[in-house]
Amino acid sequence: MNILVTNDDGIYAPGLAALYQELCRLGEVWVVAPESEQSAVGHAISLSHPLRVRQVAVDGGVSGWAVTGTPADCVKIALAELLPGTPDLVVSGINLGPNVGINVLYSGTVSAATEASILGVRALAFSLNTYKNADFHRAARLAGEVLDRLLPWPDWSPQICLNVNLPDLPRELIRGIKFTRQDVGPLVEHFERRVDPRERIYYWLAEINERRPVDLDTDFGALQAGYVSVTPIHHDLTHYPSLERLQAQLES
Amino acid sequence: MNILVTNDDGIYAPGLAALYQELCRLGEVWVVAPESEQSAVGHAISLSHPLRVRQVAVDGGVSGWAVTGTPADCVKIALAELLPGTPDLVVSGINLGPNVGINVLYSGTVSAATEASILGVRALAFSLNTYKNADFHRAARLAGEVLDRLLPWPDWSPQICLNVNLPDLPRELIRGIKFTRQDVGPLVEHFERRVDPRERIYYWLAEINERRPVDLDTDFGALQAGYVSVTPIHHDLTHYPSLERLQAQLES
Repeated sequence: MNILVTNDDGIYAPGLAALYQELCRLGEVWVVAPESEQSAVGHAISLSHPLRVRQVAVDGGVSGWAVTGTPADCVKIALAELLPGTPDLVVSGINLGPNVGINVLYSGTVSAATEASILGVRALAFSLNTYKNADFHRAARLAGEVLDRLLPWPDWSPQICLNVNLPDLPRELIRGIKFTRQDVGPLVEHFERRVDPRERIYYWLAEINERRPVDLDTDFGALQAGYVSVTPIHHDLTHYPSLERLQAQLES
Repeated sequence: MNILVTNDDGIYAPGLAALYQELCRLGEVWVVAPESEQSAVGHAISLSHPLRVRQVAVDGGVSGWAVTGTPADCVKIALAELLPGTPDLVVSGINLGPNVGINVLYSGTVSAATEASILGVRALAFSLNTYKNADFHRAARLAGEVLDRLLPWPDWSPQICLNVNLPDLPRELIRGIKFTRQDVGPLVEHFERRVDPRERIYYWLAEINERRPVDLDTDFGALQAGYVSVTPIHHDLTHYPSLERLQAQLES
């Protein structure tokens, strides 16, 4: 199996190195990742400026291409120009921090997997439910275990990518895998209003950690409860029930 | 009615000015838009750097706030900090160039409307099917006409935003409104490989205009055929058929 690994934390991120080492047991692993951190870039692509590509060998074993672009750019240029062939699988991550709920829309990690599915390649995004002191080696072993469970899935169409969120817990505390839907509850966030050294105002987006009832059927809820959350996602944003109602209204 | 107008081409874009003037007949119009062009930023938000906000009065009548961020940032900060109240409607555009098919995922114009629907406000994105010599005044009159048709729609939930693409045609050549689904056919694109003055290689993404059968049920097809395309979209990326199959497999 040929596997392309990418991420949004950049080619030097420890989450990518740990994932790379884990995936090497499954086949040949190619790395094409952003030159620098690209968090919360959403599904951005570079149109108004060109991309530079640089071959990189990272201490600890990762070697691949660093791209001056977004995660979606990396997947596009990997498949079009850099790789010797089409990969069988694209794996994005392991992201430092979860990608659940509305945050999925802002996530560069997930957009790389979505881009692969647009281009017809099966893909997963892995994110770890912590922002600090991440044990990526433990997380990568868990990612490998999840992948072993998912790879044989016969109905996995390349049009569908899997958004996987991993608890940051010892293996024995993980309660299993839950297949979930994306939580669509609004984020609780606010802008911090600050004053700079020249006495000008600026604003910084801050998310408020909220306590709310945990719904185990959602990515957010399952992860909070200690499950690995796996959400199948796609890139058709059409809301079909509304489409039918609008068309019916037009005809009436 | 209070209306927030934003876009991804920036606060000085002619498409925004024309839309602003058209919407003023419907109520009070507030403008919060990016300081500079933000095309193909997708649903990006600014986390690692703060936002600056500047009050701007543009020749020709637009006055509002310019934000050093993405379209989604503009909607967030408008609702959280800048506006005197919650708007009844958010309108994004008019974008120079269409936003149909897979490009919807890369579109800053559409992501502003999606962000509004996440925050519980009804929203539309308007894009014009040309990249040059755009007649934005003609397009804005058409946008107003479309809005008059859509605003009374009783089933329009704030969770659903409408992605509207306008033909760049005289009114008499426009064949009507079609309610469409997002085309999910892959884009035909490639990277141009170039050499810079220092003899280093760089790559530039180029889209190839393809000729393919026109499906009138899609945004791409309806627009090509001279219809105004209206696609209801939402921000739940879950692919429910796969979710059911995965859950069934887990239980078996």
